[in-house]
This record gives sequence, structure tokens and C-alpha cells, in this order.
Amino acid sequence: MMKISNVNNVYVKDEERIDDLHRNGYLIIQNPKYFCFGADAVLLSNFAKVKQGENVIDLCTGTGIVPILLEAKTEGSCFIGIDIQEDCVEMAKRSVKLNGLEGKIDIKTLDVKCAADFFKNSYFDVVTANPPYMNEGGGIINNYSPKAIARHEILLSLEDVVSAASKLLKFGGRFYMVHRPHRLVDIFSLLRFYKLEPKTIRFVHPYADKEPNMVLIEGIRSAKPMLKILSPLIIYSKEGSYTDEIYNIYYG
Amino acid sequence: MMKISNVNNVYVKDEERIDDLHRNGYLIIQNPKYFCFGADAVLLSNFAKVKQGENVIDLCTGTGIVPILLEAKTEGSCFIGIDIQEDCVEMAKRSVKLNGLEGKIDIKTLDVKCAADFFKNSYFDVVTANPPYMNEGGGIINNYSPKAIARHEILLSLEDVVSAASKLLKFGGRFYMVHRPHRLVDIFSLLRFYKLEPKTIRFVHPYADKEPNMVLIEGIRSAKPMLKILSPLIIYSKEGSYTDEIYNIYYG
Repeated sequence: MMKISNVNNVYVKDEERIDDLHRNGYLIIQNPKYFCFGADAVLLSNFAKVKQGENVIDLCTGTGIVPILLEAKTEGSCFIGIDIQEDCVEMAKRSVKLNGLEGKIDIKTLDVKCAADFFKNSYFDVVTANPPYMNEGGGIINNYSPKAIARHEILLSLEDVVSAASKLLKFGGRFYMVHRPHRLVDIFSLLRFYKLEPKTIRFVHPYADKEPNMVLIEGIRSAKPMLKILSPLIIYSKEGSYTDEIYNIYYG
Repeated sequence: MMKISNVNNVYVKDEERIDDLHRNGYLIIQNPKYFCFGADAVLLSNFAKVKQGENVIDLCTGTGIVPILLEAKTEGSCFIGIDIQEDCVEMAKRSVKLNGLEGKIDIKTLDVKCAADFFKNSYFDVVTANPPYMNEGGGIINNYSPKAIARHEILLSLEDVVSAASKLLKFGGRFYMVHRPHRLVDIFSLLRFYKLEPKTIRFVHPYADKEPNMVLIEGIRSAKPMLKILSPLIIYSKEGSYTDEIYNIYYG
């Protein structure tokens, strides 16, 4: 059974839902059976700097949330999202159509490991990635569900992501990634190895006095070493409500 | 001209001063012409974990502040401090005597680069270091003053410090360092290269909503990767007074 959205004649499956992005009136289709986007994707879209006329590729795009939010928030000219999961890509394409963004956002079924070959000689200004976080000590995961593929390094390692980003970026191009703080040594080592020098990071803390549970990273292709660590990004105030900064990112 | 301290018949030079460490009644001699210790050394002493009976070596010990505070705060059995600057070492030795700690703390004039050879086969449980921070883009520093040597990588590079720590530590031994956040990529790369896996870090922020200006790092010899980032350590509350945590570190 399919419901038809009243916008742009996009169909929506029964198990899917349509969420409001509170940004340019944009909507997004999500399927709770897959991986729904989280705060990490929203914060990544806010952290990434995209200048006028720049072209952007988002790796592991999932629902397409990052290119859709970047299109809304920046003056970039062209946004590509790739994901290995065909069902996700098909759904993300419908979200793009729902918002009438087919001319600016292109979502493709493509393995990140093949992206550099696929796009050969078209260097990007910006690469974004919200990759699988979990490298559970080599434990074997039997469940290759869409959620498991999005969360665990089953089909894609952190090194695959960083290597692809490095090849896709032009000299001086910028790589933005969100990841878990406990992987920071791996992240820095790989970024430097693949000539994406870490230049800016920001830790995201649930509360001001708690450990960070996310980190936002900017690496610049072939840049000189000199890391800037920004002030902490705090999600909740003491009272448990969103901080002003988070409220503005979501609804501002 | 020399003043004589009324404690343990230690002499103090006219240009020197005696400061109270607010810990076990301990005092320390400082000379403003050299490098006086700062918050970094105090925070390093608080961050470093030393267990009962462990032996500790402090690299770039300067005034001897770190071994003196660690002796006061921990149940370690033996503390060595080394520094290349003979005048500093002579002054630090007087501070040790002033506190009657000659049996537990030994300060030596020794280049960090020669420490592994000097102490061959005596592996330490803990190495601490508050090394020179500045690597001013290769700029030539003409002024080889005691302050410049303590602050700039003139006689000692970050790699020298990490390499020495790695050689001095036993398997599973712990390295504690305080440094500047903008060097974190270099620090992680060197620690991993020299098999001192970064396991815990804590950023120090002047105020809760400001960028960090120090980072405390724990590396463990031959440990597996998995970084823990602690909650931020904040120096001043909004009102400009010390936070409770800092007050307790200094006076608690």
C-alpha cells in the first residue's frame, strides 16, 4: 500500500513517515525500519562550511538528510549523495523530489569505495560523511540489516571513508565528518596519512559537565598542521531543555 | 646576598621567593627570572595517577613542582625529576630539602634525550612531562634564556619527549603530559608511533563556553586503542572565581 504525498506527486509507503525539517519548508521521508537520521547528521550539516557555487558530495547519505539540509542552509551549487543501500537511495530520491530539488541534489546508489573511480577527475570542494561508527573489536555481526550496515563497519571501514574523501577532494578542499570521540586517535592518524590534515574539531556534549559523545571534524586537503578545537557544543541545559545554540540549529 | 630559610637551613637567593603549595605544608622556591610554574604543572600533577609503591620520573621538571606535588598527593615510593638546566635543578634540589623530601625525591641535571640511556633497564611505572610547548613554525629564536628553553622546542622536541617516555616506561606503564590543544594531532601521531597509546584526555577551558587552552593526556605503553575523553575541566565560573574543582585542586 502506498500513500501519495500531496506535494509533487511523491508516493510514500505505509511504513514510512514524513518529517518536517523546519528549514525552507523542507520535508524528509524516513522509514523506521531503516536507520532514521539523528542529531549527528543535523550537527554535521551545521558544522560543514559550504561557500557560494561549491559542489559537495555526501558519503553514506542514508535518507539524504545532509545534502537536503546543506542545500537549505548554504549557497552551494550542486549536492551529490551516495549510499550503498539501494532502498535508502530510492527513498532519499523521493525526498529530493518532494522538495522540488532534483535540479540541485542528486542521490546515487554507489559504494563509497568506488566513488573516486566513478567521479574520476571531477574534484569536489567539500566532502561530508556520517559513516558507520562501530568497530566492535572485530566481533562478527550476523545481522546484515540496513540498520547494522549504517551503524557498523561491515561494508565500509573508517579508512575506506577517509581514503575516498581524500581522492574526491581538490587541493585545499574540505572534509567534514561526525564520529565518536573514542575513535579520535584513529581518525587523526588516518586523516593525516591520507593528507586530510585535521584543522578544526568540536566536541558535542549532552550536558556541559558530561563527557562528549560526538565529535565534528574538519580536515583540509594538503593543509599544514595546526588544530583548532572549538568551544564545546552542549545539547541540553541544566534544566534538560535544548541550549539556545541547539535550538537555533534545529529551528532557527 | 642570600637569605636563609628557617626550615632545614636552606638558603634562598635574593631574587628568589618561597611559595606555599597549600599541600602538606610544602613550600617551593621560585625565581621569576627563570620559568615559574603555572596552572599546567598543577593540573598535570592532579591528572597523573600514581599508585602505592610506584616510581615516577618527571621530564623537564623545572622548579620540581610536579614531583613535589605528586609526593604530597600520592602513595608513590620514589620520584625523580630531570631537567637540562643546571640552575633550575640546583634550585629544585633546595626546594626538596626545604620540605625534607631528600629520601623520596631526587632531582638531576640530565638531558631528556639521554634519560633512557642513563636509567637503562630501570623501567618506570609513570612518566610525567610538562614540556616546551612552542614550535613556532621553525622560526629562529636568538634568545636562549632559561624561559625560552622552558617554553620553546629549542633543545627538546615533542618527539624527543615522547620517544624518551616510551623507552623509560615498563609495559603497561603510564605517560602523563600537559600540552597545547593545537598540537593534538602531532601528539596522537607521536604517541601511537612510540607505542604509548592515548587512552584518556581532558581539555582545560578557561571558561565553560570558551575554547580549551590546555590538554591533559594519558598514554599507556603498548595498550589497545580506545580513547576516553573526560568532561571538560573549567578554570573559572561565569562570575570569574575558580570553579569548585579548581579550588579543590589548588587548596582542597
